[in-house]
Amino acid sequence: MSLFDFLDLSGTLVFAIAGGYRAVRHDLDFLGVLVLAVLTGIGGGLIRDMLLGATPAASLNDERYLIICVAGGLLALFAARKVAKHWNVVQFADAIGLGVFAAVGASKGLAYGLGPVGVMIMAALTATGGGVVRDVLVREVPAVIRHDFYATAALIGGGVYYLALMGDVAEPVALWTTAFVTTAIRFTAMWRKWGMD
Amino acid sequence: MSLFDFLDLSGTLVFAIAGGYRAVRHDLDFLGVLVLAVLTGIGGGLIRDMLLGATPAASLNDERYLIICVAGGLLALFAARKVAKHWNVVQFADAIGLGVFAAVGASKGLAYGLGPVGVMIMAALTATGGGVVRDVLVREVPAVIRHDFYATAALIGGGVYYLALMGDVAEPVALWTTAFVTTAIRFTAMWRKWGMD
Amino acid sequence: MSLFDFLDLSGTLVFAIAGGYRAVRHDLDFLGVLVLAVLTGIGGGLIRDMLLGATPAASLNDERYLIICVAGGLLALFAARKVAKHWNVVQFADAIGLGVFAAVGASKGLAYGLGPVGVMIMAALTATGGGVVRDVLVREVPAVIRHDFYATAALIGGGVYYLALMGDVAEPVALWTTAFVTTAIRFTAMWRKWGMD
Repeated sequence: MSLFDFLDLSGTLVFAIAGGYRAVRHDLDFLGVLVLAVLTGIGGGLIRDMLLGATPAASLNDERYLIICVAGGLLALFAARKVAKHWNVVQFADAIGLGVFAAVGASKGLAYGLGPVGVMIMAALTATGGGVVRDVLVREVPAVIRHDFYATAALIGGGVYYLALMGDVAEPVALWTTAFVTTAIRFTAMWRKWGMD
Repeated sequence: MSLFDFLDLSGTLVFAIAGGYRAVRHDLDFLGVLVLAVLTGIGGGLIRDMLLGATPAASLNDERYLIICVAGGLLALFAARKVAKHWNVVQFADAIGLGVFAAVGASKGLAYGLGPVGVMIMAALTATGGGVVRDVLVREVPAVIRHDFYATAALIGGGVYYLALMGDVAEPVALWTTAFVTTAIRFTAMWRKWGMD
Repeated sequence: MSLFDFLDLSGTLVFAIAGGYRAVRHDLDFLGVLVLAVLTGIGGGLIRDMLLGATPAASLNDERYLIICVAGGLLALFAARKVAKHWNVVQFADAIGLGVFAAVGASKGLAYGLGPVGVMIMAALTATGGGVVRDVLVREVPAVIRHDFYATAALIGGGVYYLALMGDVAEPVALWTTAFVTTAIRFTAMWRKWGMD
C-alpha cells in the first residue's frame, strides 16, 4: 500500500467513526448510521474527485474505502457509549483525519494541475467536505463555517504542501509535513480554544 | 426506446410527481413546484453521472427527461387534491420508482467498471439521491437516513443486479429482476412497517 | 480579458459580496464569511462544470476567481454596516449578477453540446446554484424555490441565448442580450413585487 493510500484510508476510518457517532446522537437507525458514516468518510473525496474530473471517483472503485466506512459506522453504533466516554479521543482522531485528508487533497489537486490557491482549496475541501455533507443531512450548521481554525488549518496545510513541492521536497516528506502542520494547528486551536463559540 | 430508457423515464415521472407534491404541501409557488419536481426526478441521476464522469449528464442532454419532469410537476400542482386523496397510490408509485432507478443505477455503475460495492452504491444513490436533494431544500431530514428499508432495498437490488450479470443473466432480465426485487422489498417494508418511526 | 471572462468575474464579485453579507447577518466569524463568499461566488459555476464534465472546474484553475471572492467577502465583513444601509444597492447588484451568470452558463452549456432545455437549465443553475449552496449551509429555504421570478428570469435568459445563437447572432451580442434580458426581468419582478412572499 502506498503512503497516499495509507493516509487516505486512515482518514476515512476516523471520519466514518465520527460520522457514525453523530448519527447515533441524532437517534438515527441502523442504516442512517451507516449512511452518515459512509458520507462523512468519503464525502470530501467524492466532491474533490467530481470537481477535478477524477472519475469514476476513487472511493467508489476501491472496495476498501466502503468496507472501512461500514466498519467505522458499526463501531460507532455498537460502541456508542464507549465512544461518548472517550469523546476527547474522537476529537483527537478527527484532528488527525483533518491533517491526513488535507495532505491527500493537496496532493491530488496538484496532480491535476491546479495552482497554489486551487491546491489549498482542494486540501480544505477534502478535509471538510464529508463533515459538511453530514451536518447538512442532520440539519446542523456545518462546523466549517462556525469554527475559524478548522478549515483554516487545512488551507494552511495545503499551502505548505504546495511550497514544499515547489521547493523540490520529496512527495512522502511533503505529505507527512502537510498532515503534521494541519493537525498541529488544529490541536493548538482546540487547546487554546481559538475561534470557538 | 430501449428498456433502459423506458425504465429511466418512468422512474423520472413518478419521482417528479412525488417531488412536486411535496412542494405543494410546503406551499411553494409555481416555480418552486417545478424546481422540486425536476430535482427529485433527475437529481439522483445527476449525482450518479457526476460521480461516474458520465458527462454532460444524460438528463441534461436528453430533452425528454426535463419535459417529463415538468409534466409531473404540473400534474402535482393542478391535481394536488386528487394526489392527496390517493396518497397511497403515490407511495405505491414511489416504491416502483425506487426499484426502477435501482436497476438503472446498477446498470450504469457496472458499465463504468465499478465492482460489487460500487454497483450497489450506484443503485442506492440513483434511487434515493433525488429525494435527498428535495428534502434538504425544504429542510426535512432525508427519508434515506430515517427509514431503514428504503435505501437498503435499493442496495440489495444493486447486489442482485451484480450477481445476475456475473452469472451471465441477460441484461433485460437482470434489469427487470433488480427493479422487481427492490420494489418488492420496499412494499414488504411498507406493509409490515419495518424501520418506520 | 475576453467578454466571457469579464462577465464571469463581475458576477463572481457581486455574488461573493452578497454571500459574505449573508454570513455577517448570521453572525458567522471571519472564516465563515469567507467560505460563504467563495461558495456563493463560484458555487453555481462549480456545479455547472461538474455536470458538464468541464473539469478541473474553471474557478479552481484560475486564481482570479478565488482572489475576487476573498475580496468580496472582506468587503462584506469590514463594510457590513455600509452594505446594510445600501441594501437596495446589493439587491440591484444581485440582479445584475443573475443576468451575467445566466449568459455565462448558457454559453458554456451550448459549448458542451446541450439542446435548448439543457442550455436554459445551465443558465438558471449557474445563476442560482451559488445562492442555493449558501442558503442550505445557513439553513434557509433557498430563494430559488420561494421566489417565482428569480430562476425564471435566468431560464428565459437561457432561452434567449439559444435562440440568438441559432439565429446566427454574434456571440458577444448574444451574451450581452442574455444578461440584459435576465436582469431586466428580475428588476421588473422586484419593482412590481411579482412572486414575492
